[in-house]
Amino acid sequence: MLNSVVKTLQVGLVQQSCTADLAANLAKSIAQIRIAAQQGAKLVVLQELHRGLYFCQQEMAEHFDLAETIPGPSTQVLGALAQELDIVIVASLFEKRAVGLHHNTAVVIECDGTIAGKYRKMHIPDDPGYYEKFYFTPGDLGFQPIQTSVGKLGILVCWDQWFPEAARLMAMAGAELLIYPTAIGWAPDEDADEKVRQRDAWVTVQRAHAIANGLPVISVNRVGHEADPAGGVGLDFWGSSFVTGPQGEFLFSASVDQEETKVVTVDLQRSEQVRRMWPYLRDRRIDHYGELIKIYRD
Amino acid sequence: MLNSVVKTLQVGLVQQSCTADLAANLAKSIAQIRIAAQQGAKLVVLQELHRGLYFCQQEMAEHFDLAETIPGPSTQVLGALAQELDIVIVASLFEKRAVGLHHNTAVVIECDGTIAGKYRKMHIPDDPGYYEKFYFTPGDLGFQPIQTSVGKLGILVCWDQWFPEAARLMAMAGAELLIYPTAIGWAPDEDADEKVRQRDAWVTVQRAHAIANGLPVISVNRVGHEADPAGGVGLDFWGSSFVTGPQGEFLFSASVDQEETKVVTVDLQRSEQVRRMWPYLRDRRIDHYGELIKIYRD
Repeated sequence: MLNSVVKTLQVGLVQQSCTADLAANLAKSIAQIRIAAQQGAKLVVLQELHRGLYFCQQEMAEHFDLAETIPGPSTQVLGALAQELDIVIVASLFEKRAVGLHHNTAVVIECDGTIAGKYRKMHIPDDPGYYEKFYFTPGDLGFQPIQTSVGKLGILVCWDQWFPEAARLMAMAGAELLIYPTAIGWAPDEDADEKVRQRDAWVTVQRAHAIANGLPVISVNRVGHEADPAGGVGLDFWGSSFVTGPQGEFLFSASVDQEETKVVTVDLQRSEQVRRMWPYLRDRRIDHYGELIKIYRD
Repeated sequence: MLNSVVKTLQVGLVQQSCTADLAANLAKSIAQIRIAAQQGAKLVVLQELHRGLYFCQQEMAEHFDLAETIPGPSTQVLGALAQELDIVIVASLFEKRAVGLHHNTAVVIECDGTIAGKYRKMHIPDDPGYYEKFYFTPGDLGFQPIQTSVGKLGILVCWDQWFPEAARLMAMAGAELLIYPTAIGWAPDEDADEKVRQRDAWVTVQRAHAIANGLPVISVNRVGHEADPAGGVGLDFWGSSFVTGPQGEFLFSASVDQEETKVVTVDLQRSEQVRRMWPYLRDRRIDHYGELIKIYRD
């Protein structure tokens, strides 16, 4: 048969906590990437902004000192590591593009150490504790999957995960996987039922991108408590990194409160079977989708 | 406060099995609508094509005899009932629009017995056991919510539920609820794990429409085994009708194998609170959504 190729991918997820010590955070990421590679990972995904604390809890101009160029110090170190380990790495950096122009950028590093491509976070949140619109200019690269030696990767970042349009556009451009580096957590003083609803909604909306597009989804979230520099309650990042197959079925789900490194086998060929029986791409009513490019239909 | 209005709606769901006896099916629906109304429902939602068996298991020209005009016999009976009970009813009919032109159409009947509007199923499935493309011309009315005395209803039908575009367009046009009359089930000879994945995907993708759009979702599915007229294994409709709030949180979930009539209180005002903190409509990147109106980005 023409389409009976077996195509599996070992994907490593690094769910970690961070401190203000940038070098220590990177050292920890590197140690965990090495463990994932030893366990067979050919692709390793880090969480959003893994170099440091989630600095967007407050709007503080000095935090722009945390930004770096791409290529720059982080991609240099991770590039050498990717080459040494012969793996692809998805990193997430605070990109300094010019003086006064910054992005929240995911970088895909090829197994030869070069930069395969980058994705600048397109949807930028802004709500109490997540003041990202102060720091990040919304991306201008659009929704373009990045071709790598392990497949065509649909990289999206955190807040993007709530937008079905982003997932769909990646799938329509041939993404074989959707990948979400993320930093999301609870306000510690939120009531318990609301915490359950928030985390459950976060998992559910991403599983639905897998289902609606017939693609595996990999989501890697930060874990641990981080204090609010202004003396507020801070944030409890809820971990819960996960992998689903193309029907949204769980292949792995991490804890809410522990650092974890996990290698998961993803069958990239299963999308072929799933999409044959659930052929949503066949039936989209593009003749009636025109108003999706409006803000509101009023 | 300007926006502190309490606005709850009692929604009745009728999950039923059907036989070849059209009159008996309608009598059963009417009896259950009466029960729901007695329990306080102001809106009652019936399942997809509740007048009869799910005839799309095979392509048989004689099944076009089951179609009716709108308005027609079913809307006449249900209109009188809606007026008597002072409720809004969402019905789902096999519409005969002209000789050789048929639709799968949801009709919203106002509490004065008039037709408030109709929605012609836009996405039409076609896979073994669900040969709908033979029977139904894809709808030409687009994704327009229907204004009623109980709110602005975003009616979609079955296969539509797999398309985030449909839910989004309804939300963008001011829908206060998403409502999915449905007829979906398992091939009885499917393996047990696949059955779990299918039903779970169906629930998850609809919950995600609630989440991504900050809207309650009501889904009403058929239940029971129906034989294949060609002698195949038939279909086991999996019931599991449900209601969620605007974070995708379950307010009700029906059984997989029993007829059920249930009245659920939906807080329409909660969307206001949820969308303030999760303001996805604020942040859509319409400057980069243009290719959503392509079939594929190649």
